[in-house]
Amino acid sequence: MKVLLGVSNRHIHLTEEDYKTLFGDEPLGVVKELVQPGQFASDKKVTIKTEKRAFENVRVLGPIRKYTQVEISKTDSFALGINPPIRNSGDLDGAAEITIVGPLGEITKPCCIIANRHLHINPTQRKELGLVGIEKISAKVVSEKTTLFEDVFIKESEDFTLELHLDTDDGNGSLAKTGDEIEIFIP
Amino acid sequence: MKVLLGVSNRHIHLTEEDYKTLFGDEPLGVVKELVQPGQFASDKKVTIKTEKRAFENVRVLGPIRKYTQVEISKTDSFALGINPPIRNSGDLDGAAEITIVGPLGEITKPCCIIANRHLHINPTQRKELGLVGIEKISAKVVSEKTTLFEDVFIKESEDFTLELHLDTDDGNGSLAKTGDEIEIFIP
Repeated sequence: MKVLLGVSNRHIHLTEEDYKTLFGDEPLGVVKELVQPGQFASDKKVTIKTEKRAFENVRVLGPIRKYTQVEISKTDSFALGINPPIRNSGDLDGAAEITIVGPLGEITKPCCIIANRHLHINPTQRKELGLVGIEKISAKVVSEKTTLFEDVFIKESEDFTLELHLDTDDGNGSLAKTGDEIEIFIP
Repeated sequence: MKVLLGVSNRHIHLTEEDYKTLFGDEPLGVVKELVQPGQFASDKKVTIKTEKRAFENVRVLGPIRKYTQVEISKTDSFALGINPPIRNSGDLDGAAEITIVGPLGEITKPCCIIANRHLHINPTQRKELGLVGIEKISAKVVSEKTTLFEDVFIKESEDFTLELHLDTDDGNGSLAKTGDEIEIFIP
């Protein structure tokens, strides 16, 4: 079966407290709704930095979350000189330390991960697609650099809708782009 | 069977003429021999740039070649705002225009490609491994982000030795690194 692809560039989620440190009382505005219901690209950007390197214009994704998390690619991690673990979003076990700079302040904390490949899905879709009880699937991008991605974790929530997320290393390496329809299957 | 992996970061090959434009009469020194016999990382670096962005410290690989060629990743191409084709090294058909800056001059020409995935091999190894008559193979990186790469082109020359080359998008996306032993197979 085929599912919609989203290729995730480096981005950040913020807690209420960390948001206030960086941006004060300014509201978090919506620039663009994302495919996942309620999620949006906000009008706020930060700089993420280490001793080695900084990336400017890293988009804050909304809404505010219960954890602050910076998601980057392995390629980004080499530029920054850090070694973040591959993690499910929200799992900051062993996360790499990074500094987040906003217009009003900065925060340094171990909150940087490389997100695993994952498929967003809601329980109804999971039943319909026969994916109940399955933890990981595979996805195949067909292109001039055809690639089969294993280790795609299924992330279920009532709030989700069916969408495959790859980071820029995987997306660009396979010449895939946001909006593509990608074949997924049980390995 | 398993083969040695080399992950190629962005780099450049230069003709004698273009080398002289950029570096004059300074000799091209060897910093490190590469796995492919006679190939080396030189002591020279250039800046590559477009209207959108520049990358400094791009390594010149030696020896001097019959063509000038800039090899980048798809991720680099987005940063630079260009759309280079996926090509065999040496095939500059449709290559993207880019500016190369050295200490003594600069060159702008359509010489930028994204190299295809490829396996270097010599005729003896090709016979031994049963790859005669095979144009493309697949390679599987086993990691936390296990990935099967199709479209790995076989490049045969008497001057080559067995080595798989992936760019940084593919290498980093699959968490592979130079020196890893990677399984290859006929698809």
